[in-house]
Amino acid sequence: MSDSSKSPLRIGLAGFGNVGAGVYKNLEKNRALLRERTGRDLIVKRIAVRDLLKVREVALPSEIVTIDLSELVNDPDIDLIVELIGGTDRAFDLVRSALQNGKSVVTGNKALLAQHGKDLFALAEANRCPIFYEAAVAGGIPIIKTVQESLIGNHIQSVAGIINGTCNYILTRMEEAGLAYGEALEEAQKLGYAEADPTLDVNGWDAAHKAVILASLSYGCWVPCDDLFVEGIEKIQDRDIDFAAKLGYTIKLLAIIRLHEESGAIEVRVQPSLIPCGHILASVKGAFNAILVKGDVVGETLFYGSGAGQDPTSSSVIGDIADAATRSGNENGSGLVTHGLYGKPLPVQESISKYYLRVVAEDRPGVLARIATLLGEHQIGILSVIQPEDHDEEFAPIVLMLHFAPFGVVRQAIEKIARLDCIRESPVLMRVEDVA
Amino acid sequence: MSDSSKSPLRIGLAGFGNVGAGVYKNLEKNRALLRERTGRDLIVKRIAVRDLLKVREVALPSEIVTIDLSELVNDPDIDLIVELIGGTDRAFDLVRSALQNGKSVVTGNKALLAQHGKDLFALAEANRCPIFYEAAVAGGIPIIKTVQESLIGNHIQSVAGIINGTCNYILTRMEEAGLAYGEALEEAQKLGYAEADPTLDVNGWDAAHKAVILASLSYGCWVPCDDLFVEGIEKIQDRDIDFAAKLGYTIKLLAIIRLHEESGAIEVRVQPSLIPCGHILASVKGAFNAILVKGDVVGETLFYGSGAGQDPTSSSVIGDIADAATRSGNENGSGLVTHGLYGKPLPVQESISKYYLRVVAEDRPGVLARIATLLGEHQIGILSVIQPEDHDEEFAPIVLMLHFAPFGVVRQAIEKIARLDCIRESPVLMRVEDVA
Repeated sequence: MSDSSKSPLRIGLAGFGNVGAGVYKNLEKNRALLRERTGRDLIVKRIAVRDLLKVREVALPSEIVTIDLSELVNDPDIDLIVELIGGTDRAFDLVRSALQNGKSVVTGNKALLAQHGKDLFALAEANRCPIFYEAAVAGGIPIIKTVQESLIGNHIQSVAGIINGTCNYILTRMEEAGLAYGEALEEAQKLGYAEADPTLDVNGWDAAHKAVILASLSYGCWVPCDDLFVEGIEKIQDRDIDFAAKLGYTIKLLAIIRLHEESGAIEVRVQPSLIPCGHILASVKGAFNAILVKGDVVGETLFYGSGAGQDPTSSSVIGDIADAATRSGNENGSGLVTHGLYGKPLPVQESISKYYLRVVAEDRPGVLARIATLLGEHQIGILSVIQPEDHDEEFAPIVLMLHFAPFGVVRQAIEKIARLDCIRESPVLMRVEDVA
Repeated sequence: MSDSSKSPLRIGLAGFGNVGAGVYKNLEKNRALLRERTGRDLIVKRIAVRDLLKVREVALPSEIVTIDLSELVNDPDIDLIVELIGGTDRAFDLVRSALQNGKSVVTGNKALLAQHGKDLFALAEANRCPIFYEAAVAGGIPIIKTVQESLIGNHIQSVAGIINGTCNYILTRMEEAGLAYGEALEEAQKLGYAEADPTLDVNGWDAAHKAVILASLSYGCWVPCDDLFVEGIEKIQDRDIDFAAKLGYTIKLLAIIRLHEESGAIEVRVQPSLIPCGHILASVKGAFNAILVKGDVVGETLFYGSGAGQDPTSSSVIGDIADAATRSGNENGSGLVTHGLYGKPLPVQESISKYYLRVVAEDRPGVLARIATLLGEHQIGILSVIQPEDHDEEFAPIVLMLHFAPFGVVRQAIEKIARLDCIRESPVLMRVEDVA
């Protein structure tokens, strides 16, 4: 309900890069709408940038610009700090100072929260200042608020997310246009879906930071980054995409967060995974993101949208700013929703699934028997085997679909297989994810 | 942030049918979790039922039961009324009395809001008591909170929803198992996806009530039910499903809510529609629901989950109860988010799309020419024609895909085509919906 007598919300915006500029632009564009809906004026009172002279697509309102972050956090007339400077050092200092000075914080900084979330939320609770962080996971998709508020009555059973748009774009193009990994990456860079240095995207760590946040949100425990198992998409070849398709699967980089009900352990990992073609996650194409959440009351839900980009990410930041404008500090929008209800991270060696295994081996009799024997010695069942006939090389790919087994055991077996004298190239192992 | 010193939230639960019993059951089941997350005890203090003697799957706690709704709304020790009795007469009286007595309300009653929403939200605003209604649209999918809060910084451009699970189940089974409409309906009834009297589902009006709510949420105007154009799925034949598949489409019952930016008019309608097979909405199968929302900042987002059922709907009701427990009354969770920013409903005659038209005509030369001539006289272009050869009847189906044209003009042309002496059966006209 609008109430025009309410005071404006005075914002200190730290960072005017892609997302910061988008937030400023869209706050201006939809100012009347936001005033109508929140009952308050949302005013950017001060903007901190690193470089005053940089040429920018969105014009910087020079009268409110500073290069000194302390001018934001020390200004008693600023109610809310919006942290969009990125990185983990200056951003940590900024957020800490803001909370200590009694200011609420909005941030889109996944690395900051994955690394320092535990300390920052403790500080937020002590100061009764909320931290809002919708933009830190999956850009425009409102997954944080959804899990934190809409699904509040649920024990979260699992979260499976396509939460890196760069990887999903590359995999989609490999599948749909038959591109090689390098070609698809180059195309993604040309179109702005991948950075000049795409390392953090393609090696899975961008998704991993988001997975840590989703795990904390779902289970109230911060998994140390060192405890995560993270694999990227760099080793996936176009022929893996083809083999998967023949078997009825598509390959996605998935972040998996899952509660093991009996042990109370939490599985958190990022790995390329095979998903059945008919599954709704398989229909998530290009740079889009989607997150499948299962709760004990709601069942299966999925949230889909743009996982990055100036405008979609702005939408989430502005949603958070509006929340800060319409709520007092001691509500459930303030960070963790559960404290200590759940247990320890599950060692990835103990996590169980089916697997896709591709090896390249000498094309002669007895090779498959040797591989099968090694797998059998580790109690790993074989579901099916594909040996394409139409190769014209001395070495032939063999694809095996393996039955449910602990990841650690499968890795041990694969290491032995890799050392067989008939094997060329490193074997490629991927999860077949049980998302159904 | 939890605060164990907070007082409990005392709930008056009206209705102990499928959803009411589910809410009670799941509040009990996840009591500790909800206390941890909201910082309050959520206590059902009184339950009103119609029949004290009815045998129930979820045991009724007899010490707190009444058959008198006034015992809930007049009890000064009840903070929140949860209305799950259904219907529009007693429910209206109950919600009105609750608001007048200063109690917040949670309801899952779509018909009530579609019919009386304007008055009830005005009363809620006057009494500064919020109405929460997440469960009124799409069961477990948190679409209300998402549009109202997460997308608050967006002008909503369009909403396209599969929001009736019964219809989607029937259409899915017709497509995947080749069932006739009647067979699929019968199966849905056996499995509990359709009521004994499925009229409100299959004729589109259940979806229409939800569409009215989504329109009010997006555009701040209550479209009178009389102004809606609503078509159900009763006339769809299995051969329409087959023809659509041949053309690369799947058929879904869609609720469309769309802003026409130039005129400010709002299009609100429910119609069976053809969607391209590769579109993410096409992958929504069975009794699931999904809603595609486009905003000017966030771009395209989609929210998917169970649109009905005891547990999923409970999840939304409990989310609302938790909101009521953690918020004061004058926040943006309290109903309409926009007042008068947008204009009038668009007459459906003026709404434009492509179309699928199936006629059954005498199998002789000149028939297609007569149809094409009539369409041409109305300036309606033909995109493609299918005349299957493998029919063994005197009368043959002809399927035409028609170019963009106003619905009113197309209907006029179809009426004339229906009156041609070579035509048998009523022509079947469906939208080809531009959801891309």
